[in-house]
Amino acid sequence: MDKKAVSVMVDGLLSDGILTVSGLSHPGSEAVRGRRCELLAINGDHSAFIGIDLGATHVTGVLSDLAGAVIERAYFEVRPGLPVELILDQMKSITARLLSREGETGGVRAVGVCVPGFVHPAAGVSLVAENIPGWRDVRIREIFQSAIGRPVALEDASRAFAAAERWLGRCRGLRDFIALDLGYGIGMGMYAAGVLHTGSAWKSGEIGHTVVDPDGIPCACGNHGCLETVASGRAIARQAAEGIRAGRSVLLRDLTHGDAQSVTAQDVALAAGMNDAFSTGLLQAAGRAVGLALANAVNLLNPSVVVLGGGLVSAGSALTDALASSLARCTMPGIREDMRLEVSQLGPDASARGMALLAAEGVFTGA
Amino acid sequence: MDKKAVSVMVDGLLSDGILTVSGLSHPGSEAVRGRRCELLAINGDHSAFIGIDLGATHVTGVLSDLAGAVIERAYFEVRPGLPVELILDQMKSITARLLSREGETGGVRAVGVCVPGFVHPAAGVSLVAENIPGWRDVRIREIFQSAIGRPVALEDASRAFAAAERWLGRCRGLRDFIALDLGYGIGMGMYAAGVLHTGSAWKSGEIGHTVVDPDGIPCACGNHGCLETVASGRAIARQAAEGIRAGRSVLLRDLTHGDAQSVTAQDVALAAGMNDAFSTGLLQAAGRAVGLALANAVNLLNPSVVVLGGGLVSAGSALTDALASSLARCTMPGIREDMRLEVSQLGPDASARGMALLAAEGVFTGA
Repeated sequence: MDKKAVSVMVDGLLSDGILTVSGLSHPGSEAVRGRRCELLAINGDHSAFIGIDLGATHVTGVLSDLAGAVIERAYFEVRPGLPVELILDQMKSITARLLSREGETGGVRAVGVCVPGFVHPAAGVSLVAENIPGWRDVRIREIFQSAIGRPVALEDASRAFAAAERWLGRCRGLRDFIALDLGYGIGMGMYAAGVLHTGSAWKSGEIGHTVVDPDGIPCACGNHGCLETVASGRAIARQAAEGIRAGRSVLLRDLTHGDAQSVTAQDVALAAGMNDAFSTGLLQAAGRAVGLALANAVNLLNPSVVVLGGGLVSAGSALTDALASSLARCTMPGIREDMRLEVSQLGPDASARGMALLAAEGVFTGA
Repeated sequence: MDKKAVSVMVDGLLSDGILTVSGLSHPGSEAVRGRRCELLAINGDHSAFIGIDLGATHVTGVLSDLAGAVIERAYFEVRPGLPVELILDQMKSITARLLSREGETGGVRAVGVCVPGFVHPAAGVSLVAENIPGWRDVRIREIFQSAIGRPVALEDASRAFAAAERWLGRCRGLRDFIALDLGYGIGMGMYAAGVLHTGSAWKSGEIGHTVVDPDGIPCACGNHGCLETVASGRAIARQAAEGIRAGRSVLLRDLTHGDAQSVTAQDVALAAGMNDAFSTGLLQAAGRAVGLALANAVNLLNPSVVVLGGGLVSAGSALTDALASSLARCTMPGIREDMRLEVSQLGPDASARGMALLAAEGVFTGA
């Protein structure tokens, strides 16, 4: 585009209220023929968007303005194994609560919903989420559109996390990066040449199903020895329960009042923080396995940044330190040097925020 | 773009001689308001391009027209370990020979050179190719431009192979696919959303450096236990030499006149075709290892097609059968169903042909 075309476009965005003049450039910097430049910013007050993130253990929601600033948030823990109808009711109730704050915004233009597992964004259907029992072919768009009466966008939760990092986080302006989502499951979102990668059928990013041991235990996906069977929040909890039963950690037993079945990866992180050797060992083994799978992804994709997010990352350094060292060891020299490892600073509502922005993108691009 | 804009653009391409009318649509098909449509094709006679492909064991060259049809080809085996200057002289001599046929074309507009290892296409420099001793920071563009006086494009050989499959082969029109290049080394090219994937620094596609055994033997890249140390043409030859010395294959010993050091992966393929159990076992083990690494790449990238090329693929079915079954076993269900495995039909000059087309693309896009 030539200068004239850009100028016409910017004038249009300003008069539509999508852009706003946020100030003048510093004296001396970015001056054009001696004059200070007007600085432009996205006008958050123009419109607002709701993002809802469903995980295996939580439902998170945000009401966010067009610039990505959060006006209201909601966070609920969910017990794995709840009936699908009840989960959907919870999601709709959170959406309604966020919508009740619409008066403080430029108007809610769309709702975005992200879920784990396979999605079909064009059809608005969540196909399957192995970590949510019974969750199959859930017609998210239909259900939410009739309940809320706004356009509804759908995406994979790890891709929504990547979008959040791209617009609000550590990967602003980057064209090639990987966002790793380490939680109850393990997912990955990535940008390639500035575009959110989806693959041929919206199924890309299944790093959690990297086969790390072809003779390993069965995975929820149907294969054997996937990364998720040894290193996800779910796998860490399973191994911790086995350890409690085998008497390998007095601390974990005490933290769970002896109810081995109820132990979570958060309990393991807590125990590791209290120097429990068994718990520390579990997290280190998980970190090593993730680091190796991630190194292989980095060798294929040559990202400039890998950003780590999800519940397991905020759970202390035993896991992330082991991850970082195995990632460095197994990444090809020459690719390693090009790459920076970062930890997300966006917190637990990163995917919900990213999903709100993807919903906005859908409105403005007509997707 | 609207219909009018497309029509103006097509008229321009027709009058420039880049497009040509190749016929009329079949009666009944693609008719617009009852009239048969003019079919358009790229006009090969418009211009020509040279593609040169340097491998660890060969130099291949093609003179190709704008439509990708080959006018002349050249193929030379190269012994691993030749001095860099001699390799470059060989490449220039092949280029000159192809250029001598220019009179039969619309004129050679550019030369494309592809090499293994890391490249910097914008600078025109081949940074390093671990499988070619001494090959470092070779200023391909400068060297060829001064020798030949035409614009010179540079890319990675596996990406050139992917481009050939995209324009001429099994992946025509596909937006998301993987092209696996199985030769002396193991490389991968891929398209994501219709764009040739490069990563942040042109280093993507290093599937050969997937770590398959962190405690494995040293790799030329500096790491340990990379896929290339167990499954490349180089690794197969190394294991075959060990087998000959250990007396594990009389046939291989006889085929190489007892000179274990001289055995190649082609010898192993030949012996496997003659039912040599040791050779068959080597190729099957290599196929299984490649299949697992490839499954992990497929889980990340969700391609619609994986196309196999390179010298090892044309070497019989022991390797490709084992590859296909390990790929199917380790790919996540749901992603496996979306994917088709194909074998390249483009032959040994696939990368050279792809490189000629990438050089053409560079000329027309001004890259």
